[in-house]
Amino acid sequence: MATTIEERAAQAGGSPREPIAGVWCPVLTPVDQDLRPDAPRFVAHARWLLDQGCHGLVVFGTTGEANSFSVDERTEFLDAILEAGLPRHRMLVGTGCCALTDTVRLTSHALSRGVAGVLALPPFYYKNLTDEALFNSFEQVIQRVGDSNFKLYLYHFPSLSGVPITPGLLERLAAAYPGILAGVKDSSGDWNNTKLLIERFSDVAIFPGAETLLLPALQAGGAGCISASCNVNTRQIRQLYDDFKAGERDLAEQQERLNAVRKVLQLRPMIPVMKHLIADERGDAAWGRVRPPLLPLPEVEAGALESELSAFGWRMGQA
Amino acid sequence: MATTIEERAAQAGGSPREPIAGVWCPVLTPVDQDLRPDAPRFVAHARWLLDQGCHGLVVFGTTGEANSFSVDERTEFLDAILEAGLPRHRMLVGTGCCALTDTVRLTSHALSRGVAGVLALPPFYYKNLTDEALFNSFEQVIQRVGDSNFKLYLYHFPSLSGVPITPGLLERLAAAYPGILAGVKDSSGDWNNTKLLIERFSDVAIFPGAETLLLPALQAGGAGCISASCNVNTRQIRQLYDDFKAGERDLAEQQERLNAVRKVLQLRPMIPVMKHLIADERGDAAWGRVRPPLLPLPEVEAGALESELSAFGWRMGQA
Repeated sequence: MATTIEERAAQAGGSPREPIAGVWCPVLTPVDQDLRPDAPRFVAHARWLLDQGCHGLVVFGTTGEANSFSVDERTEFLDAILEAGLPRHRMLVGTGCCALTDTVRLTSHALSRGVAGVLALPPFYYKNLTDEALFNSFEQVIQRVGDSNFKLYLYHFPSLSGVPITPGLLERLAAAYPGILAGVKDSSGDWNNTKLLIERFSDVAIFPGAETLLLPALQAGGAGCISASCNVNTRQIRQLYDDFKAGERDLAEQQERLNAVRKVLQLRPMIPVMKHLIADERGDAAWGRVRPPLLPLPEVEAGALESELSAFGWRMGQA
Repeated sequence: MATTIEERAAQAGGSPREPIAGVWCPVLTPVDQDLRPDAPRFVAHARWLLDQGCHGLVVFGTTGEANSFSVDERTEFLDAILEAGLPRHRMLVGTGCCALTDTVRLTSHALSRGVAGVLALPPFYYKNLTDEALFNSFEQVIQRVGDSNFKLYLYHFPSLSGVPITPGLLERLAAAYPGILAGVKDSSGDWNNTKLLIERFSDVAIFPGAETLLLPALQAGGAGCISASCNVNTRQIRQLYDDFKAGERDLAEQQERLNAVRKVLQLRPMIPVMKHLIADERGDAAWGRVRPPLLPLPEVEAGALESELSAFGWRMGQA
């Protein structure tokens, strides 16, 4: 066992973990005909996303149907895609489960493989938890994982998890574990919340969970965005990010264009919608499969989606 | 492999699975100092519950902190308590997870051990699922488990799961799998819903999820109740059930008395409350432990709880 941060980092494949920023994609997880996660299709898509300009990849987020796979499926899949050569330093792994022991196992596994950090949902079955209860829960994870180079990104998605990550909880974690609490993905869709987090937690990387808030987030000092739409629209999202970083300030219209595409993408369940678009673009029907409880996009909806998108002249992967 | 229902049932320890009824307890899961499920303490408590008059036990329901344990922890624990001699024919096992493969594994394991059936939450991470999506999800479980003597009890607990079991879903399952859909635990707390289920699904055993609806449920033709409070108040709940079955009809006051106790038990988070009461009654502080994300009952709350309960003259386990 390596015992120092440097030894652990070296063992995990390089330097101590760096903070992340930019346009990150929570990658869709294709499944084979038995509905098992399909590593070769994932790797090909992830490479395309990096070519398109993604700064990094989130493996097993909500968009990746994380909670629809068992812990064994998740660890084996991560090993398979890393063996295929995806860049571990440009990767966050979703690891937050209902069961403490599952979260600890997934987190230890991901960190041991040298990824940039983990993106953790809170335990999401019991509701109305106090900040103290969630602090204790994350503290148990941190202590059981026992990795001093642990980089923890918290995942605030109250409409799905039912368990918010509050500013009060973040304050407690930032005070107790300043080197470990590294970021928040804020999928509340509530700009006031994202703004408050950016203002209040200057040492923590704050990512809105959709590109619809990318420009205001960058203007306020946010780190970028982690958005499902990157699976099909990375280049346009990356362009806004790059233009902002290059000092351009007249970007409202560019943001509006992103919002219009996003609006169509989320009119129907987004995971089946984007899997359908990829299946269609690549001529690979297998990409359309989803794991229960999701269903593939119905044929009739596919037609409507295509006509809505072509009304914009939008096409997957275009600049 | 056994191939007929009779062979499978014989292999699983007896006759084909019978419908269940009466007062069933979702048993609390004690944990050891490392927060692992504690089989010896569970077995002792379960035996006491059966002595107190419980018709049966639910292992790993919400009250049993099911989702706070990994799949391995759950299968190993079930094997341990069965080896200790708890009656498998008087046992339902909670098996509904977010991941299809986890639900299939837990369900196959429990059925192979000869229990009366499984109590399944729907996959509870994704929200706003259609009946078709949930039908497909349960159908995948039924087909992958592939046990013609499968008895499925569905668990409707919308305030925690966020994913309701609708009458429309039940109709589809009852039509497609009439021998398999065996019951519903309705923890909505909504009498109109429980009543509708009892009236509409006469071949399905309907259990309200609290004893506060026991008398109206029995009067309408319901099967009994599956209630957390049974962990500390079985005898009084069983008494109402027995008096109703014996033909007594003047039971409103008895129901009121149950409701008054329940009201105090659920003023604070019920799992820590009941674990505290057991710890206190048995002089065994270990019983007070809970798994994250729950927290034990704070000392100051324990004092208030005790004075509220003693104001009734109520005491755990009394008739």
